[in-house]
Amino acid sequence: MLSTVSSIPRLSTDPDDVAASGTVGAPQSDTVQRLLDAAAQAFADRGYHATTTRDIASRAGLSPAGVYVHFSSKEDVLYQLSRRGHQQALDLVRAAIASAASPAAQLAAAMSRFTVWHVEHYDIARVVQHEFPHLSQEHRDEVLDLRKQIDRALRQVLIAGRASGDFALDHIANTTLALLSMVVDVARWYTPAIARTPEQIGQTNAVLGLRLVGYAASPTRARP
Amino acid sequence: MLSTVSSIPRLSTDPDDVAASGTVGAPQSDTVQRLLDAAAQAFADRGYHATTTRDIASRAGLSPAGVYVHFSSKEDVLYQLSRRGHQQALDLVRAAIASAASPAAQLAAAMSRFTVWHVEHYDIARVVQHEFPHLSQEHRDEVLDLRKQIDRALRQVLIAGRASGDFALDHIANTTLALLSMVVDVARWYTPAIARTPEQIGQTNAVLGLRLVGYAASPTRARP
Repeated sequence: MLSTVSSIPRLSTDPDDVAASGTVGAPQSDTVQRLLDAAAQAFADRGYHATTTRDIASRAGLSPAGVYVHFSSKEDVLYQLSRRGHQQALDLVRAAIASAASPAAQLAAAMSRFTVWHVEHYDIARVVQHEFPHLSQEHRDEVLDLRKQIDRALRQVLIAGRASGDFALDHIANTTLALLSMVVDVARWYTPAIARTPEQIGQTNAVLGLRLVGYAASPTRARP
Repeated sequence: MLSTVSSIPRLSTDPDDVAASGTVGAPQSDTVQRLLDAAAQAFADRGYHATTTRDIASRAGLSPAGVYVHFSSKEDVLYQLSRRGHQQALDLVRAAIASAASPAAQLAAAMSRFTVWHVEHYDIARVVQHEFPHLSQEHRDEVLDLRKQIDRALRQVLIAGRASGDFALDHIANTTLALLSMVVDVARWYTPAIARTPEQIGQTNAVLGLRLVGYAASPTRARP
């Protein structure tokens, strides 16, 4: 159903990428990226089970054997897609938090940037969410661990904001989960037909997020 | 991956059900329900494209021809699953709103019951969300119309609450969307391993929802 799937920018610090491009140089890494993009498209269109490695290869302009140069199996392709997406999300949430000083500014930055990421990568986010049950147990655990790290990074901001008196909330875990729902669900409802820009959607979630944590009891200070 | 899919309770006011059971009685309706449950299970396990009508029939203990007695195609099965789920959700949101007098009590009831529904039917909700792109254009439009009616019912509560001075919020549409994200995303993160009961999760979303609409500026009145 998707005509194009936005590319996941390669993480330069990714050890696999470094290993993959170590002796052969950039072209091999480009092939990995092209295969991941092709897989995301194929999974989005047909689902994981109805997609073959031949489908993925063909969409990337390679022979089926070309897939196995870089991935051990179709599950490995899904795993790399999931791992990279989650690692990228974790990195940007951490960077957003590190970019600001106060808990309110940290929460606003994290909500805004993480939301923009979901708008810009809604197609890959959907695939990664939908096909999660098809990962091996080991790979599911690894992806869940990355999700827990994202959750933990956000929780720390809420804990700091409550300690400083900036936020007024009782239940850190439940509130963090609701904040993440507001962000992650963007991948479900967003379509390119929506007129609001990624930044506007991010800003809305930043303001609503501050309201949810009880920042600024006066409603005029935190209006969506 | 799902071993069981919870059954969608039949809506007694559903004209299709009345028609289906009109001359043949309850058994035919039971068969429809059994086929819908089997389809939800099959779609959850393998995805829409990798599921055949034969798979659905076999899980329901019928011959493939048995599916075509009740449904015109595999797409029709997905459509009936989606339509019934959305109609049921719309009915319960409207009933929740009708059950309370003040906007705050209406919002709390709607958030709580709609959340409980997502906990109890998380498996069907996932299937319906994931496979939505595989519906025909006409059926997608019909399901989208039901979603819009749910959205509209909730918006009316926010508009009334703002008019009465109970809620303090600026952007009705964006806030409604965030409230729905908190509810709908439950189907993504919920697993039966979670210790909280459906009612506790519903209550959390009711309290957080009131906070999001700026009900009771004092944080002690709306704590999660």
